[in-house]
Amino acid sequence: MILAEGKTVDHLIGILTALARRGEGALVSRPTEAQRRAVAETGRDRLPVRELAGGRVLRLEGPLGTRFRPGTAAIVTAGTSDVPLAEEAGAILRTFGIQVVEVHDVGVAGLHRLLRALRRLERAEPEIYLVFAGREGALPTVIAGLVPAPVVGVPTSVGYGRGGRGEAALSAMLQSCAPIAVVNIDAAVPAALFAAHRFVRRGTGSRSSAPPTRSRRRPTRKR
Amino acid sequence: MILAEGKTVDHLIGILTALARRGEGALVSRPTEAQRRAVAETGRDRLPVRELAGGRVLRLEGPLGTRFRPGTAAIVTAGTSDVPLAEEAGAILRTFGIQVVEVHDVGVAGLHRLLRALRRLERAEPEIYLVFAGREGALPTVIAGLVPAPVVGVPTSVGYGRGGRGEAALSAMLQSCAPIAVVNIDAAVPAALFAAHRFVRRGTGSRSSAPPTRSRRRPTRKR
Amino acid sequence: MILAEGKTVDHLIGILTALARRGEGALVSRPTEAQRRAVAETGRDRLPVRELAGGRVLRLEGPLGTRFRPGTAAIVTAGTSDVPLAEEAGAILRTFGIQVVEVHDVGVAGLHRLLRALRRLERAEPEIYLVFAGREGALPTVIAGLVPAPVVGVPTSVGYGRGGRGEAALSAMLQSCAPIAVVNIDAAVPAALFAAHRFVRRGTGSRSSAPPTRSRRRPTRKR
Amino acid sequence: MILAEGKTVDHLIGILTALARRGEGALVSRPTEAQRRAVAETGRDRLPVRELAGGRVLRLEGPLGTRFRPGTAAIVTAGTSDVPLAEEAGAILRTFGIQVVEVHDVGVAGLHRLLRALRRLERAEPEIYLVFAGREGALPTVIAGLVPAPVVGVPTSVGYGRGGRGEAALSAMLQSCAPIAVVNIDAAVPAALFAAHRFVRRGTGSRSSAPPTRSRRRPTRKR
Amino acid sequence: MILAEGKTVDHLIGILTALARRGEGALVSRPTEAQRRAVAETGRDRLPVRELAGGRVLRLEGPLGTRFRPGTAAIVTAGTSDVPLAEEAGAILRTFGIQVVEVHDVGVAGLHRLLRALRRLERAEPEIYLVFAGREGALPTVIAGLVPAPVVGVPTSVGYGRGGRGEAALSAMLQSCAPIAVVNIDAAVPAALFAAHRFVRRGTGSRSSAPPTRSRRRPTRKR
Amino acid sequence: MILAEGKTVDHLIGILTALARRGEGALVSRPTEAQRRAVAETGRDRLPVRELAGGRVLRLEGPLGTRFRPGTAAIVTAGTSDVPLAEEAGAILRTFGIQVVEVHDVGVAGLHRLLRALRRLERAEPEIYLVFAGREGALPTVIAGLVPAPVVGVPTSVGYGRGGRGEAALSAMLQSCAPIAVVNIDAAVPAALFAAHRFVRRGTGSRSSAPPTRSRRRPTRKR
Amino acid sequence: MILAEGKTVDHLIGILTALARRGEGALVSRPTEAQRRAVAETGRDRLPVRELAGGRVLRLEGPLGTRFRPGTAAIVTAGTSDVPLAEEAGAILRTFGIQVVEVHDVGVAGLHRLLRALRRLERAEPEIYLVFAGREGALPTVIAGLVPAPVVGVPTSVGYGRGGRGEAALSAMLQSCAPIAVVNIDAAVPAALFAAHRFVRRGTGSRSSAPPTRSRRRPTRKR
Amino acid sequence: MILAEGKTVDHLIGILTALARRGEGALVSRPTEAQRRAVAETGRDRLPVRELAGGRVLRLEGPLGTRFRPGTAAIVTAGTSDVPLAEEAGAILRTFGIQVVEVHDVGVAGLHRLLRALRRLERAEPEIYLVFAGREGALPTVIAGLVPAPVVGVPTSVGYGRGGRGEAALSAMLQSCAPIAVVNIDAAVPAALFAAHRFVRRGTGSRSSAPPTRSRRRPTRKR
Repeated sequence: MILAEGKTVDHLIGILTALARRGEGALVSRPTEAQRRAVAETGRDRLPVRELAGGRVLRLEGPLGTRFRPGTAAIVTAGTSDVPLAEEAGAILRTFGIQVVEVHDVGVAGLHRLLRALRRLERAEPEIYLVFAGREGALPTVIAGLVPAPVVGVPTSVGYGRGGRGEAALSAMLQSCAPIAVVNIDAAVPAALFAAHRFVRRGTGSRSSAPPTRSRRRPTRKR
Repeated sequence: MILAEGKTVDHLIGILTALARRGEGALVSRPTEAQRRAVAETGRDRLPVRELAGGRVLRLEGPLGTRFRPGTAAIVTAGTSDVPLAEEAGAILRTFGIQVVEVHDVGVAGLHRLLRALRRLERAEPEIYLVFAGREGALPTVIAGLVPAPVVGVPTSVGYGRGGRGEAALSAMLQSCAPIAVVNIDAAVPAALFAAHRFVRRGTGSRSSAPPTRSRRRPTRKR
Repeated sequence: MILAEGKTVDHLIGILTALARRGEGALVSRPTEAQRRAVAETGRDRLPVRELAGGRVLRLEGPLGTRFRPGTAAIVTAGTSDVPLAEEAGAILRTFGIQVVEVHDVGVAGLHRLLRALRRLERAEPEIYLVFAGREGALPTVIAGLVPAPVVGVPTSVGYGRGGRGEAALSAMLQSCAPIAVVNIDAAVPAALFAAHRFVRRGTGSRSSAPPTRSRRRPTRKR
Repeated sequence: MILAEGKTVDHLIGILTALARRGEGALVSRPTEAQRRAVAETGRDRLPVRELAGGRVLRLEGPLGTRFRPGTAAIVTAGTSDVPLAEEAGAILRTFGIQVVEVHDVGVAGLHRLLRALRRLERAEPEIYLVFAGREGALPTVIAGLVPAPVVGVPTSVGYGRGGRGEAALSAMLQSCAPIAVVNIDAAVPAALFAAHRFVRRGTGSRSSAPPTRSRRRPTRKR
Repeated sequence: MILAEGKTVDHLIGILTALARRGEGALVSRPTEAQRRAVAETGRDRLPVRELAGGRVLRLEGPLGTRFRPGTAAIVTAGTSDVPLAEEAGAILRTFGIQVVEVHDVGVAGLHRLLRALRRLERAEPEIYLVFAGREGALPTVIAGLVPAPVVGVPTSVGYGRGGRGEAALSAMLQSCAPIAVVNIDAAVPAALFAAHRFVRRGTGSRSSAPPTRSRRRPTRKR
Repeated sequence: MILAEGKTVDHLIGILTALARRGEGALVSRPTEAQRRAVAETGRDRLPVRELAGGRVLRLEGPLGTRFRPGTAAIVTAGTSDVPLAEEAGAILRTFGIQVVEVHDVGVAGLHRLLRALRRLERAEPEIYLVFAGREGALPTVIAGLVPAPVVGVPTSVGYGRGGRGEAALSAMLQSCAPIAVVNIDAAVPAALFAAHRFVRRGTGSRSSAPPTRSRRRPTRKR
Repeated sequence: MILAEGKTVDHLIGILTALARRGEGALVSRPTEAQRRAVAETGRDRLPVRELAGGRVLRLEGPLGTRFRPGTAAIVTAGTSDVPLAEEAGAILRTFGIQVVEVHDVGVAGLHRLLRALRRLERAEPEIYLVFAGREGALPTVIAGLVPAPVVGVPTSVGYGRGGRGEAALSAMLQSCAPIAVVNIDAAVPAALFAAHRFVRRGTGSRSSAPPTRSRRRPTRKR
Repeated sequence: MILAEGKTVDHLIGILTALARRGEGALVSRPTEAQRRAVAETGRDRLPVRELAGGRVLRLEGPLGTRFRPGTAAIVTAGTSDVPLAEEAGAILRTFGIQVVEVHDVGVAGLHRLLRALRRLERAEPEIYLVFAGREGALPTVIAGLVPAPVVGVPTSVGYGRGGRGEAALSAMLQSCAPIAVVNIDAAVPAALFAAHRFVRRGTGSRSSAPPTRSRRRPTRKR
């Protein structure tokens, strides 16, 4: 995972070009408009990159180092505004070869619809659930009471006033009376990588080949 | 309503004795152990007081000033720890002649049990719901999606760590994606008085005879 | 109630067109400029929509599902800046057939003016008060001491520095020494829907026909 | 003003004895039980000390350094729990020879009683108001709209849940739509000293003889 | 004082024109660029308005209602960024006929300069000090230890990171070990009005003629 | 999992006795001293209960409903104070038949010791890591950079001053630049149950037989 | 440095006995009453331990590993309550052979006294200043403007209400307009160790022999 | 050090021109784009100014007043986004004649790389470390466990959601289990000046010639 944030356009292109030349693949999270344009302008022959999740993730073709066993993860959102984040997580998981089943806009204020949706998801026997919710953030708790798999809550920066921008959702998930784990507000990428670790094939490489979360570094400078 | 908190024992006994002599009734909220003992020791002939809700409310017999029409309110709790607060609210409503239906310990992590309980409550066609919940505070939101009456959330000081002591529950209720109103953490008495206002009989007296929330005053002093 | 926030223009137009085709009515809260323009450009023959409260609410003509009995609600604001939010609430209540009496800019720093205004409002015997105030948020408390109806405080994002943007107002309302209930900062729409529940005609439909607060959903996706 | 807090009993007795020997007077704020007992046991011949405000202030007899002109200050409290703090401020002002008029337990939820009380206070034409209030802290704002003198708000640590222990009161006073100044929560002593400065007789001494707020120091140590 | 914030241009012009027609004067605080332009375009014959403090205050000529006795106030700032706020306060005080002495940019990190400046200010024997400081907000405390007049701290929204935007300054002033009073962050106008109350001539009018802080209201509406 | 907190002694004994009579097993988290004594006094023939983790968990003998496949979890603590919480989690996991490898007191200020310890733990190829840390909470981040398994951070209420009692640790874990998930401060029990879900055997029962997190309910009451 | 907090009495005695047997010295910070008693009861022949700073630090005799060059540090406190913390820091520095000059109770509200004290301290040409202050925390800023050495601010948990318990002091020091560095509230031990690093003799050992801050570990356990 | 923030362009040019005329040098921190342009347009003959650290610092040529002995400081960053701040600090230190060794982008999630980098830095035997880190802010703690010199943590405004914008990093550094000192978020300039004080040559001037942190003042005004 290459974190695009805080990198100059030249720096990012440099990293990707080097990887491409060595035949390695990569994922770039949350590139800026300028970074995406620069990648596109470099040309697909030099940088074989596809945009995933509406451009929120870039995929440099080639092997990713870590190997994952097959399996299924579920993604659920409480509201319309949570969908782009969910797609970001889904794109990353699918890139790793993990199957994703998903259902959207099933908030706790409409329970019967939620119950029907979960019944359908459960048929795929997902090994882990990523549940996205803003506002009061109750959805992961309700789902954890209904399915036999670990549930990770992803609070989203939805909501206004006191507890807005995901603050109430995060607090509520931390206080959940069901045994869920959480990530930070809008942290779709860490959530996806955490879930992916469930499917890592041990023995196929050290951690350094597992999904890394931090940027490639520029060489140490001394002057 | 006479708020016992912050009053000396003598002061409270003085207020109640004066009311009793005039033949007026009263409710005293959250008396301390010392205040309760002093009231008991005064004797039922001078102070005809009964303890309600396990002693969290005192009832001085006699008319209360405001008049209420008949009606039904519902009280729901998410967990065992919320029950004493709920009983406090229930005792006040019943004193006003309002019928109370209730169900306890129906948290959102056990949905099917909650759905059964609500079906039973709805048969009484309650005109307002008081819903008590700590931790992630999701219960009022879920209930407001299922019943055709106004829902008031009462966050309770249950929970630990970040968002503990009712903080997450309050924030979550304020962020609710259902149109609920809330009161402060553990504010069972204000919640009951707010609900009671729905049943006030207009024209039977001015607001000054409606359920007052603040203490009787000691006379203005000048020196 | 259809929450416009977080919906694409196409998505919103799609929902409204489907409803219009089925002859159902709807309310849309806080549409963006772009959403309003798109609705207008669709044409009143396909989308018979009127703008309420200066465009903060859209009304798709047709029946709304829930039925309300006649009645009166009061709306009060502390300052000039609170008026647009109050009008949003008023428009929703009037759409439901509920009569609204209102008075504006009667802050607690000018008590005598406030007392005169309340006397006039009380002649209409409102069954519930919605009181909007920013800054120190004292108005709902003062009013609750003077009228025999339930009072809901709506803190508004007015004020600067410590406690600004409605934070102090919300805290003060939660701490009120009068038995008021509150909604979140600027939450005019939830406040109006909560008040409307007082006037719901039971037996004319399930909750699902009561004023819903969440968006119509786009169909569950699976891939 | 000698701040008793954080001083050992011996240290405090030492300071007072030295002052008494030189014939100087002093005020000691908020002595602990142990400090008060030690002062009493020292005997009135060596330490001519009287207890004021129920022991919350000690007065060592003798001149205080600063000289004050005659004048009147008003003290108002919102509730019963605020009275001890108000008495602390009143005792200090009276020690300085400033006349104090006061009224207690006149919260904003009972406006008509408050209006009557203010009319009586105004007859004394106070030059400054100290207004004590916890919970929602609205009283200083309401009073500042009614009297032609500066108003200082003193938030008190009354209240529970969100914004409790004076937090909401302080925020509300800082947000006041009337031009009041405030001191910290429960800061009755600083409030009294601030008010007293209005009555300082200039030219009768440098600031070092004005009401000092900090403790006498123990001599600089070097080792 | 007419608070310009939150008023439409038409509304403000309407209020001022009505006052001008009646021959009354007024002060308008913090007008927007658009409001100032509209006032200017109305023409000085219809609206005899001058801009004070670089346009942060507007002065409609004519008597202000309240009468003030002569006297002197001191204004001190800790840094360059505090000066515009200080000028706002100074303009208001001078409009009331109160003399203002001032010194700027004398932070506590340069003590000797501060001591010289205070010596000069003290020659005018100011009856009250308004001290503006951001960052660590220590200046009012240091000054209150050196002058025999009441000191009001005005925290300013200067500073970054933790405690930035005036938060640390406000907290530090509330914690001051000297008996100062404070107003909210950047609250230059309330500070000036609070100080002015020290100079109000009693008996020349009711409070309603004292410096009012809130906006003229638009007429109560009923529909 | 039966949450002991907030239950009366009688209530808890009642629940356990009923389970024992039906031959079912249970885990009780964080019993109070009084609850533990009452259980002990009931006698092992009626209540076959063992104390785990120094009495922080009670184990009622008998089958637990959910079935787990074999596997290994790792537990790591940063400091001595974190050990009791870690033992609580370990006891629960072992009760479920999951193997636990652990290492204690390996904070990030002593890196070389930590690296040696991880090498030893990795030999057991744990499928998930629970990492307990207070203070600055850096340990889960460092470990997630070194092992190929999912890492769950458990902030502990260690530390003082700003960010103390686990607040800084929780924030730091949420901000981790490695893809970890977190639970609330001191939430050893939820962390253990979350980890256990990784080992649940699907198809051996519905979620209702998976490790439930909330208390057994007392029967719904109606009056 | 051995952190006593969170260690059982047996554990601490075990660590110290082992060190004593090997002839190594140690410092123990903030032992509990029980820990101190256990150390005393072990006897000076087996544990040659002296109490420093009134028992807040224990010194096990013997060499400490790191070597320090001679030098002088200055310690200053703003108030009486800060002295015990200052003594804790002083005891540690002196143990390392660093000379300490100090002055106490010189708050910024009494500037002239402070200026005299600093003049005396400066004669010793201290290489670093540790400045302890609670309440408004202004002292380190004022001192940093007057001396040519690095200043470290140590906020102390003195103060009440908003910003109390050292919160305002810490924020103010972080916002200082002088270039100071800070440690956490009451963090006298880290401050002393940070200052001591200035005097470490390089080349006389690796960091592992420099003043370590964390506890000796109990051996890794595996089961 | 001249703080550019909050100064008008004219004011800044005036200060610099006066200094240049007297032959004195200066450093200007964080000039705005407009200020930099104005300086450049003034011409190098009248204002001999160079831009350092990509324009974040301006250097007016000429002697700086304070004199520093030779020595080495180390600068370390955790991520790419921290580099501009680090360069700001480095430019200031080098201007003072202090040698700087640095290494970038060595976060704690990649330990082995960090260990190699530190080994290289240590060869220069730096007397102080400035360590820049955002997100979870663990880097200064880890480094302080490995090097025998004082470590100053500089939290950077990197990160999102709860604890974002440097808040978690600052809290974590304050909670560090290693004895580090910290400055405020993004406070690269104060950190550099604090570090520089380590190298001040005593006796070559008073503090007033030591690196001052506050702006040149405009002359006291009196009107």
